[in-house]
Amino acid sequence: MNPSPTAAAQAAVLISEVGPRDGLQSVQATMATADKCRWIDALVAAGLREIEVASFVPARYLPQMADAADVVRHALTHPGITVMALVPNARGAQAALAAGVHKITLPVSASEAHSLANVRKTREHMLDEVRTMLALRRDTAPATQVEVGLSTAFGCTLQGAVAEDEVIRLAAACVAAGADEVGLSDTTGMANPAQVRRLFQRLRAEIGERAGAAHMHNTRGLGLANCLAAYDVGVRTFDSSLGGLGGCPYAPGASGNVVTEDLVFMFEAMGVRTGVDLPRLLAAREPLRAGLPGEALYGMLPEVGLPMGWGVAA
Amino acid sequence: MNPSPTAAAQAAVLISEVGPRDGLQSVQATMATADKCRWIDALVAAGLREIEVASFVPARYLPQMADAADVVRHALTHPGITVMALVPNARGAQAALAAGVHKITLPVSASEAHSLANVRKTREHMLDEVRTMLALRRDTAPATQVEVGLSTAFGCTLQGAVAEDEVIRLAAACVAAGADEVGLSDTTGMANPAQVRRLFQRLRAEIGERAGAAHMHNTRGLGLANCLAAYDVGVRTFDSSLGGLGGCPYAPGASGNVVTEDLVFMFEAMGVRTGVDLPRLLAAREPLRAGLPGEALYGMLPEVGLPMGWGVAA
Repeated sequence: MNPSPTAAAQAAVLISEVGPRDGLQSVQATMATADKCRWIDALVAAGLREIEVASFVPARYLPQMADAADVVRHALTHPGITVMALVPNARGAQAALAAGVHKITLPVSASEAHSLANVRKTREHMLDEVRTMLALRRDTAPATQVEVGLSTAFGCTLQGAVAEDEVIRLAAACVAAGADEVGLSDTTGMANPAQVRRLFQRLRAEIGERAGAAHMHNTRGLGLANCLAAYDVGVRTFDSSLGGLGGCPYAPGASGNVVTEDLVFMFEAMGVRTGVDLPRLLAAREPLRAGLPGEALYGMLPEVGLPMGWGVAA
Repeated sequence: MNPSPTAAAQAAVLISEVGPRDGLQSVQATMATADKCRWIDALVAAGLREIEVASFVPARYLPQMADAADVVRHALTHPGITVMALVPNARGAQAALAAGVHKITLPVSASEAHSLANVRKTREHMLDEVRTMLALRRDTAPATQVEVGLSTAFGCTLQGAVAEDEVIRLAAACVAAGADEVGLSDTTGMANPAQVRRLFQRLRAEIGERAGAAHMHNTRGLGLANCLAAYDVGVRTFDSSLGGLGGCPYAPGASGNVVTEDLVFMFEAMGVRTGVDLPRLLAAREPLRAGLPGEALYGMLPEVGLPMGWGVAA
């Protein structure tokens, strides 16, 4: 049931599924560990090759993530996938590296107001934390990848506009500190396609191949248009969440990660290979639904189904 | 309450509102004439400059459109807007021209199966009808514009794929017959951004400045991405429907015109001027709601509202 190596090798874009972390930490209910594992199995079976499976944060803040190490351990049993976890600080990084994740992602807010609300640190203090985490990686798990996700890179519901120069300066500082990749997140659903093109072009001009994923939200319906815009300027990794689960609890009014099903459909329809099998991806909603009964799931493709003749010519 | 001439003059794209025709003919309920007029007034007040207000078809098929001439008469009282009507045949064209519309739009299916289902004519027979309608225009109302909308141009739920060569051949035939513009409609919500770029580029190569509007659906969530793709290759007129009302009753499984509110928001956020005032556009949902109680309206922007600080810098 693992993705075929052929499909993975031919993929032109990487869909990085964030539902088990970003999605689950945004809902009130806590999914049982066994249910999380079944869901991750279904995501792997659909061909997703990079999955953010947990967040290493104190259980008193996010009880939904108390089983992070167990979930990572299970995810690691699948060959060929990249197991990611989010870590907001050095203690979390230590736990994630000890659990054996392939990649950690560090959130750094581009907006000072969001940084204080989300991690209770200024951006400069957060950069110090990033340096500490990178030192820890170097000393304890040098093969582990480290990605920084610059949140609120396109605007902030707390402070309003975020200066593009500051986004680029932060990205450069993270790369200077040793980060392997720096991606841009539209945490608050304020991005538009022109801005997405401009900012990712500037990012690539500044940090070259270390420019990372586009993490877009669908708050005002522009999620897919923004992903298309990012693709147009060379972005090849896209974060999304099955059923659109998730958002950011500390950005008031923000909601709705890009729906993985719709994003994969857009790329596959365009002839841009994702390595993901759409019928299996749609089937992966079942374990999600079973593990989170009553939770609203989103997505246009799941409502309507695949177009007539889909897959026949492929 | 009419749009300011300055806003109209600076607009970089034309949003052609199709709700009063495409939307209303797709719902079961019939909106009262006075309610239609109030809704159209609100659309004009929001700055929309082209509105498809009615369809001239026999009332026994579409009772929702029985008051077409009255609605056109009212719409014509607004200076500075283009009043459009859809006409499927010569009799409808005669009535629309007599009512004094500025522009008629003729639907020609690119798919033979859809043509037979929608107007009960083959495509060749429909081209003959187009020629008859163009002769009628020349003889009775030469100042009236005639646009052909090639429906199912991106795929058909009845026959599956539609050959791009046939779409282009039909467009050329319509222009040869004297049509002022030929647009492409994703009647069935099957288009993807790569296809949209390719087909509109081919259309422009074939018929130059007579290449018309992009009429996209949001069936699988790609509506805005497809509009962005069309914009990228030079399309400057976009059909959309307030609240996403509408679809095509003869294309099973198709639903959901692009939502005007979200489309205008995308362009304005990008700095592409539409001439439309977003708060007034959102207010235009009220007369729609009042005239069609209980009907589902769509749109992400209306759910979430404008971002913090919107319009302050503009």
